[in-house]
Amino acid sequence: MFDEIHDECGVFGIYSNKQENAKLTMYGLFAIQHRGQESAGIATTDGYGINYHKDMGLVSSVFKDEKTFDKLKGNIAIGHVRYSTTGDSEVVSAQPLVIRHSKGDLAIAHNGNLVNTGVLKQKLEEQGSIFQTSNDTEAILHLIARSLEDNIEDSIVDALGQVKGAYSILFMTNDKLIAIRDPLGIRPLVIGKIDGDYVFASETPALDLIDAEYIREVEPGEMVVVDSNGLRSEKVFFKEKTAKCIFELIYFGRPDSNLFGRNVYLIRKEIGKQLAREHKIEADIVIPVPDSGISAAIGYAEESGIPFEKGIMRNHYVGRTFIQPTQLDRELGVKKKLSPIADVIKGKKVIVIDDSIVRGTTSRKIVKLLKKAGAKEVNMLIAAPPVVAPCYYGIDMPTRKELIAATHTLEETKKYILADYLGYLSVKGMHKAIRTEKNEFCDACFTGKYPIKFPDM
Amino acid sequence: MFDEIHDECGVFGIYSNKQENAKLTMYGLFAIQHRGQESAGIATTDGYGINYHKDMGLVSSVFKDEKTFDKLKGNIAIGHVRYSTTGDSEVVSAQPLVIRHSKGDLAIAHNGNLVNTGVLKQKLEEQGSIFQTSNDTEAILHLIARSLEDNIEDSIVDALGQVKGAYSILFMTNDKLIAIRDPLGIRPLVIGKIDGDYVFASETPALDLIDAEYIREVEPGEMVVVDSNGLRSEKVFFKEKTAKCIFELIYFGRPDSNLFGRNVYLIRKEIGKQLAREHKIEADIVIPVPDSGISAAIGYAEESGIPFEKGIMRNHYVGRTFIQPTQLDRELGVKKKLSPIADVIKGKKVIVIDDSIVRGTTSRKIVKLLKKAGAKEVNMLIAAPPVVAPCYYGIDMPTRKELIAATHTLEETKKYILADYLGYLSVKGMHKAIRTEKNEFCDACFTGKYPIKFPDM
Amino acid sequence: MFDEIHDECGVFGIYSNKQENAKLTMYGLFAIQHRGQESAGIATTDGYGINYHKDMGLVSSVFKDEKTFDKLKGNIAIGHVRYSTTGDSEVVSAQPLVIRHSKGDLAIAHNGNLVNTGVLKQKLEEQGSIFQTSNDTEAILHLIARSLEDNIEDSIVDALGQVKGAYSILFMTNDKLIAIRDPLGIRPLVIGKIDGDYVFASETPALDLIDAEYIREVEPGEMVVVDSNGLRSEKVFFKEKTAKCIFELIYFGRPDSNLFGRNVYLIRKEIGKQLAREHKIEADIVIPVPDSGISAAIGYAEESGIPFEKGIMRNHYVGRTFIQPTQLDRELGVKKKLSPIADVIKGKKVIVIDDSIVRGTTSRKIVKLLKKAGAKEVNMLIAAPPVVAPCYYGIDMPTRKELIAATHTLEETKKYILADYLGYLSVKGMHKAIRTEKNEFCDACFTGKYPIKFPDM
Amino acid sequence: MFDEIHDECGVFGIYSNKQENAKLTMYGLFAIQHRGQESAGIATTDGYGINYHKDMGLVSSVFKDEKTFDKLKGNIAIGHVRYSTTGDSEVVSAQPLVIRHSKGDLAIAHNGNLVNTGVLKQKLEEQGSIFQTSNDTEAILHLIARSLEDNIEDSIVDALGQVKGAYSILFMTNDKLIAIRDPLGIRPLVIGKIDGDYVFASETPALDLIDAEYIREVEPGEMVVVDSNGLRSEKVFFKEKTAKCIFELIYFGRPDSNLFGRNVYLIRKEIGKQLAREHKIEADIVIPVPDSGISAAIGYAEESGIPFEKGIMRNHYVGRTFIQPTQLDRELGVKKKLSPIADVIKGKKVIVIDDSIVRGTTSRKIVKLLKKAGAKEVNMLIAAPPVVAPCYYGIDMPTRKELIAATHTLEETKKYILADYLGYLSVKGMHKAIRTEKNEFCDACFTGKYPIKFPDM
Repeated sequence: MFDEIHDECGVFGIYSNKQENAKLTMYGLFAIQHRGQESAGIATTDGYGINYHKDMGLVSSVFKDEKTFDKLKGNIAIGHVRYSTTGDSEVVSAQPLVIRHSKGDLAIAHNGNLVNTGVLKQKLEEQGSIFQTSNDTEAILHLIARSLEDNIEDSIVDALGQVKGAYSILFMTNDKLIAIRDPLGIRPLVIGKIDGDYVFASETPALDLIDAEYIREVEPGEMVVVDSNGLRSEKVFFKEKTAKCIFELIYFGRPDSNLFGRNVYLIRKEIGKQLAREHKIEADIVIPVPDSGISAAIGYAEESGIPFEKGIMRNHYVGRTFIQPTQLDRELGVKKKLSPIADVIKGKKVIVIDDSIVRGTTSRKIVKLLKKAGAKEVNMLIAAPPVVAPCYYGIDMPTRKELIAATHTLEETKKYILADYLGYLSVKGMHKAIRTEKNEFCDACFTGKYPIKFPDM
Repeated sequence: MFDEIHDECGVFGIYSNKQENAKLTMYGLFAIQHRGQESAGIATTDGYGINYHKDMGLVSSVFKDEKTFDKLKGNIAIGHVRYSTTGDSEVVSAQPLVIRHSKGDLAIAHNGNLVNTGVLKQKLEEQGSIFQTSNDTEAILHLIARSLEDNIEDSIVDALGQVKGAYSILFMTNDKLIAIRDPLGIRPLVIGKIDGDYVFASETPALDLIDAEYIREVEPGEMVVVDSNGLRSEKVFFKEKTAKCIFELIYFGRPDSNLFGRNVYLIRKEIGKQLAREHKIEADIVIPVPDSGISAAIGYAEESGIPFEKGIMRNHYVGRTFIQPTQLDRELGVKKKLSPIADVIKGKKVIVIDDSIVRGTTSRKIVKLLKKAGAKEVNMLIAAPPVVAPCYYGIDMPTRKELIAATHTLEETKKYILADYLGYLSVKGMHKAIRTEKNEFCDACFTGKYPIKFPDM
Repeated sequence: MFDEIHDECGVFGIYSNKQENAKLTMYGLFAIQHRGQESAGIATTDGYGINYHKDMGLVSSVFKDEKTFDKLKGNIAIGHVRYSTTGDSEVVSAQPLVIRHSKGDLAIAHNGNLVNTGVLKQKLEEQGSIFQTSNDTEAILHLIARSLEDNIEDSIVDALGQVKGAYSILFMTNDKLIAIRDPLGIRPLVIGKIDGDYVFASETPALDLIDAEYIREVEPGEMVVVDSNGLRSEKVFFKEKTAKCIFELIYFGRPDSNLFGRNVYLIRKEIGKQLAREHKIEADIVIPVPDSGISAAIGYAEESGIPFEKGIMRNHYVGRTFIQPTQLDRELGVKKKLSPIADVIKGKKVIVIDDSIVRGTTSRKIVKLLKKAGAKEVNMLIAAPPVVAPCYYGIDMPTRKELIAATHTLEETKKYILADYLGYLSVKGMHKAIRTEKNEFCDACFTGKYPIKFPDM
Repeated sequence: MFDEIHDECGVFGIYSNKQENAKLTMYGLFAIQHRGQESAGIATTDGYGINYHKDMGLVSSVFKDEKTFDKLKGNIAIGHVRYSTTGDSEVVSAQPLVIRHSKGDLAIAHNGNLVNTGVLKQKLEEQGSIFQTSNDTEAILHLIARSLEDNIEDSIVDALGQVKGAYSILFMTNDKLIAIRDPLGIRPLVIGKIDGDYVFASETPALDLIDAEYIREVEPGEMVVVDSNGLRSEKVFFKEKTAKCIFELIYFGRPDSNLFGRNVYLIRKEIGKQLAREHKIEADIVIPVPDSGISAAIGYAEESGIPFEKGIMRNHYVGRTFIQPTQLDRELGVKKKLSPIADVIKGKKVIVIDDSIVRGTTSRKIVKLLKKAGAKEVNMLIAAPPVVAPCYYGIDMPTRKELIAATHTLEETKKYILADYLGYLSVKGMHKAIRTEKNEFCDACFTGKYPIKFPDM
């Protein structure tokens, strides 16, 4: 399962005269909670300085105290949810980052990852900058602060012009909400409208939840500014191609998201159909690994005519608060989360559809569970091509060494996970299912072809 | 959705020489967490007195501190999860209840509800008993304490002989683990084996999680005693019929549960098929209200040939910690939990399958969401007969007045929930799908025919 | 220091038409927090049933959420703070205990300890009673419930007539607040008036804090009933002598308490003077072990003419939340709480006055600290006679074996604690300072002469 | 009472090969907890990067989890406690601040306040610096990072050479612990030794608690560096005079502190004597407002011959966790903390000694309490001169407008607080008691004569 892979962020912003901008932002973040579950934060301005609250934890926990909203007043708000990598779990690194610099107060909420941070930081440090977090984001703020441009918008363009990598960013000053997306459009960012006011979000369910209307994506390389004069937009960076993250469609996006102009559920279902075309297997039932394999399994069943069944049950009470593991706890492992429905499985030739094989250990445990439940045959199909290369644009993956598909043949992997059959979606099939246009997506994690060179590595 | 209806308990017990009986019990409770989410508790004995820990909250929260297990040593352990009705959320009422009486220490974990508690309590109070909780369970303990029988087993039989209602109970003394089920077998209770030792649980997933083997149900009216001599069993109450709770199959049981000898998922899928036979509708897609409508929707799709689709997405981050509601919070209502996938719904004649209509307000919101998402037609099918009568045997339902099916005609209900079609499963169809044997189930909530007379009402 | 000795309870009750009875009770409890720091609880009635909230922790923590008071409405309220002995820290044992019995709802808040609980419990268990806590208090409730008297007041008298030991109790029914004190008057209990309404409390500072006027003590053996007809009183138990707990004056009472008709501070100061008369020592300064030795040290200084100095500082940040001890933590021991002021001590002959020597280990550490700070001579005087016998009436003391004064001679103790001189207050001197009337006090902990025989031991 | 005035920080640092440097630092901070109760933090290094943990709350709460220490390993540690002014209570502003800059990793713990931060920040912002906190401290880090000096020590000297104001700072790099104090020596900072290793602390009780030996103060303008070569020191800033904060002796310092070469308790006692010389009053008793007036009251009593009494009792259970105030809560006000001992006060001419009158409201309440307790006369003496001017060097005081002594005459103040007599210590008397040397202390808060000019105001 892709559980071992993490996005790093989701962002939400609103400019409106509503009383409850901070709370609407909280709901926006809540709807994209899946994009980052380690910290959450909201910054607001009433035109006279920026207030913020951020902490480690889920949105519902960081903002559980109604009193928190008392200090988060104002007509602009931006918010952020974050997955933080181990070892940097101090709240100092949570976003929005809020700073004061020569052009005034500035808050930033950033989704994405830069690839030239090392070079940039070194240069900035040589010029006397200090870094308080391990965020890439801080480098952007330094570049803005050091820009010789005399207004914030030009400074932002100046700064981001020096940056390589993925970013969908919301900036907030005392009187402006600014959204900008990198020239390749790697991470998503959409614009919505609510009662004539503008909102921005990483994914459309954030709009849906607060009853905002989806307008369009922020374009790759586009900067959108909302202030008292309304919304204006400018294309500030130009590339002849884009490199939208195909992984957002494959794994991160919520099924009800409209991502890069496509509905995520329907894309995944189509992937299931494609899988059926590529892997014709004689079997009694098709079952998903819940929840992420469900869409593809429905598609596979529809295309193949093999009945779709619920063969594994997911326990949603598994949470972060679980006690420190003893030996017994570790043995139970994936069983705490997934349990087979033996009466469905017993004596059956099963096709089980998962979204991925990362290290292989989880897949191995799932196959074992199914066999123990009496499956006659376990055919595992993966609704994505093999993950063979790490991502440098904002997705936290295991290293290449840990990726089983990068280090083992298909046959070896099949053996390791104890399956009777193992099949991946082909890269070509993936693009067909997604209806990729020319130069539209980055598929580096599946192909190793990176759309941006890395000065850092 | 049946979210508005709550079971009151789940129980788990183990007798073994394992070091980690308390932790195994915690995992057992974790697997049946859906049966009670308000409090959790575990009592253990090492032969010299009973220790326990219980508190309000989920299992993972009540037992999040590893140190808690330090005082929960011993070769016998019983545990309990509970749904507590409003107004009695003090931990004093959480179970296991642990008492000292003339025959020694005794702990009890009780799933079910008695119908003659009022009469019993009055009689007991007249004899000088005091009640510290609002639990039925306390009355049972008083009856045991007052029994003239000179050993605990006979006292239990004596006490329960005076009780009417539903109970699946685990008792623990300093050296015995005793399981007993009411003569009608209303609530479930199963026996499992792990490395030669015995465990008991409300549902089989508790056995599965800890790798215990399912042996059989505790029979209606059977008392099973485990002590240093092993397991022995005696049928202590006799009835010519049983009255197993059909609602456990319809709603409470986990899909992977083996309940009353049936797999819950397969029963619900069969209900979906039966629904298809009873309600032939021309439609483009069949979608479930997740998670509870999924099994029936799969069955309906299979039987009718209409494609199964994921049309509504469920947000599992919704939890108890959410902030106190303001007006905005209330408006968002069910949307925080459920969101339609518009691209699936748009322009379609939709069959949406839910597990129930209780008050009608939630169904109305779901139909509205689907229409707003562009559904051409919303046909709602309910994978259960109308709930027309409250339960007195351990399920916390709204009163008859609040049950829309008890107070409105089908046509009125359809109008209220704004659906184009509304159909319930027939009572006969339900029994057919479940393959009910003669005199096997209590279906009072659907028929008003109560298997036990109530002295109390 | 007497820190190693704990009282078990404090009680507070109010009958008034004020809106904020529960909150006044909280403040009352807060003022007697020193009497019990492990759990706190409040029960209220509006005439239709009893609501309550209780939990482990300090008053300010158990009642930190304003919402808690929403369910604690009504014109009668009683509250309780408790020190719970190790091994019984479950909230089930916290008070008030609230029960339902044949004569209706009843809540109890009890300060004191019974000496015939064992006998009573055995008899009650034989008659079929069950015990859910390890409280003595529960036995009283059983006796009331079993009483054949047909009203609650007579039942209480009937029940307490069978009980031996110390009790100052507040009972609350749906319409009555009842205060009663054991015939020997062992534990304190006072009556106050606030705006024409009545309050009861263990100590007078609870009255002072809420601006209630002190009226008088509840008399030994007196029952005071407050209901809609006002206050009425009856002497229900008669003894020719009393046995007020002298330890309340010596140690427990707040200095600003008016206990048994005496101001605690002035009594302790007089004890200091008496100590000066009994132990004439040539020294440069008199210093107290803060805070408990302060009053006596002031008296000693005044009587002896030796200057009073602050020679030891107490760190009030020491609290319960401190981390689990490692070796380092244990080494720091008493130093976390007490630190000498070296410039005051250095080169001086010091008289240090503490309230007690219990095990001797703390005194030894204090002497060491003072010597390390440069004291030329450390003369330790104890503002109480040696504690030689445990208390059975509500004070939790170490066992006789652990009491250094019960097992070692004065000379041995002096040697062990490393002091140059060690002197206790004489029993006779204590009574002189306290102006004891004939048959007024129980001084069993200092003399071993117990005023009540114990059927239990 | 000076409760309304807050210091901003305390610091502690250690360089040693001990296993438990972080824990020793925790104890060091615990001993100076009174210097800052809003946040606490510790940073450590094992030579390869800096780890830290900081959070809002008391030391015992921020470090209550033993696991926190697992990531705080290494041979150098620095810690910080902080009082944070309202509106900046985000943990981002807690210290130590930990940064990465061109010369490597750096952590800082700063006690004091700069007066040219505004100017510095503006200049730094113009050069492109960004500020993430409202701390002065951040400006120092920017100056260090921008310094053209090529080692950290010279960079620190370069940076602090541009800074005006009060600072006692501990810096930590991967291999050095650096202590530095501003040229006027405004805030204290001492050196201690433990088993041959060096420690630094704001006050000596931090040394005492961990059994470190007091060596000497860090001199004004001195930089002390500890690394693998041991300790070396350099005087880096020179001033012909010092401006030690006299308020540290008057109010902040712990009585057992050795501050600026003086024992705090003895200084305060001497102040009491001086007060007696300046204000000869006929009275029956001298009582302190606890705890801060105790030392002076002892001195006054000794000098005047009027008996010292404990006339007011302080409740130490008052803490931060108290519930949100309702009207009733506000009315109780200071009574929750202070209660008079009526039997001591009644009918007496009382001299009550407090440490200060800030706004006057608290003093007024105290006088009222004493009168209500029966005092015939209340003479209030203040163990400090009137506070007439705010502090800009690290003490958070009310504004000049709020200081009653800055806006009212002595007579007006006396009337407002309802006292029969009101007397302050004279400035001259204060210096006499403290044995001030020429040009030693800053007494600006009492005289308005500021030792440093403020570019910022």
